[in-house]
Amino acid sequence: MTVAIIGTGLIGCSMASRLKETGFAQKVIGVDNNMQNLQTAMQLGWIDEAMLLDEAIRQSELIIIAIPVDATLHLLPGLMNKIDGQVVMDVGSTKKMICNSITGNSKRNRFVATHPMWGTEKSGPEAVVKDAFKDRVAVICDKERSDPDALSLVERLYTAIGMRLVYMDPAAHDVHAAYVSHISHVASYALSLTVLEKEKEEDAIFELASGGFESTVRLAKSNPDMWVPIFMQNKENVLDVLNEHISQLRKFKSCLEKENYEYLAELIGNANKIKRILK
Amino acid sequence: MTVAIIGTGLIGCSMASRLKETGFAQKVIGVDNNMQNLQTAMQLGWIDEAMLLDEAIRQSELIIIAIPVDATLHLLPGLMNKIDGQVVMDVGSTKKMICNSITGNSKRNRFVATHPMWGTEKSGPEAVVKDAFKDRVAVICDKERSDPDALSLVERLYTAIGMRLVYMDPAAHDVHAAYVSHISHVASYALSLTVLEKEKEEDAIFELASGGFESTVRLAKSNPDMWVPIFMQNKENVLDVLNEHISQLRKFKSCLEKENYEYLAELIGNANKIKRILK
Repeated sequence: MTVAIIGTGLIGCSMASRLKETGFAQKVIGVDNNMQNLQTAMQLGWIDEAMLLDEAIRQSELIIIAIPVDATLHLLPGLMNKIDGQVVMDVGSTKKMICNSITGNSKRNRFVATHPMWGTEKSGPEAVVKDAFKDRVAVICDKERSDPDALSLVERLYTAIGMRLVYMDPAAHDVHAAYVSHISHVASYALSLTVLEKEKEEDAIFELASGGFESTVRLAKSNPDMWVPIFMQNKENVLDVLNEHISQLRKFKSCLEKENYEYLAELIGNANKIKRILK
Repeated sequence: MTVAIIGTGLIGCSMASRLKETGFAQKVIGVDNNMQNLQTAMQLGWIDEAMLLDEAIRQSELIIIAIPVDATLHLLPGLMNKIDGQVVMDVGSTKKMICNSITGNSKRNRFVATHPMWGTEKSGPEAVVKDAFKDRVAVICDKERSDPDALSLVERLYTAIGMRLVYMDPAAHDVHAAYVSHISHVASYALSLTVLEKEKEEDAIFELASGGFESTVRLAKSNPDMWVPIFMQNKENVLDVLNEHISQLRKFKSCLEKENYEYLAELIGNANKIKRILK
């Protein structure tokens, strides 16, 4: 099968690499406004050919949109009008606004809304990771709005690259993503700023940074071009979780201020229950 | 050399294992009130012999205290009175209160205050990690208060297990540790509670959790028996950093509420500068 990937960044190229490796795609066409990424993707062998959008659509059976969610929102309605029977899927981190953008489109049935829950803090075709996506969850939204053959093609794709499928409506997806992905990024960005702020008066503040710090601050390296649009499109949910997170932090603050170490131990004991989820 | 390790948990046993592996210690004696840990440490071969404290002191040239910082504070003054020329070092995550506890002790010169910046979210002798401590920083505080031979012994120990040495006064250490270690734990605990709280109304909230979430929440598995005393002893610094962290989070909140996405992009761009520190 020939697959067109719009967006030759980390996600698009990791997907391209896995699709070729597993034999799901015989040919991958790359499309990108970013000529640098497109060229690198060719040089690294992630894509077989670079094309302009219209030609890529004509030559492909499946079109994967792997660009920031604001760009997806902008591109998707027009793209749907251009297809002629092909299947279109997106891989964006928000689902409600993207799905809403083509609710009334006459070719809505050829679109499958998805979110493979994999990524790293890095960007670009150089950041492709071997075994990307493997053993992670891919969310498919509004599956009843997609044609059975389109849905089935996308399900086969995710299964081929080793992902487990979960079905959800777009609103539920956005709530879940706010809790287990978007808030982690906000927390990590804020933690980075907290320590960088201190560095202004204390040069050597990072000298003692060890594995624990690296782990909590890793996501703070993530690209604003990708993340600002996610926060925009999932504003209400992210705000809800952020408020809850700040109120949890205030409990720790109050324990310290009041020297209530018994309650502090209880909070930590409760937080430890995450072991049930993360082995 | 014969080394006594008081506390056969993760840090004590990882230290024991590295000291034997590098040939720095020919014999390691374990001391612990926790008979279960002591027995496991023997079975796993981290220690050569288990002894009561007084006998272990008599037979050792170096005594390493690797117990929670509240227990260290309780044990240290009496322990110093019992030694007869041996070197004593601690490995606790706070330094000011521990150093203050023996300021006037007549054998203060045989003590070296240290903090090797390594650990994991796990506890106990089963959690020992190969290559523990390697390539990390060990902090030595108040080095001028230790006898040259005692200081030199501890420096040789840390060099032997592959650590880089940094010298700092105890108050500066506690500020640094609050920024690059203690706050990461508070943030991670609070993030865990935020999502566990949501799970009460939404069973499947963790279904989409991926690598990013795991990374930011990993430290939330850390043991309260170790961490409550650290927060107690470093209360003022942790509160300062926590206040700063909450105010950084409020900036993100305000950006979303006011839909000020330009400033949001600026905040994230600034947070990205952590790349300079963490490769």
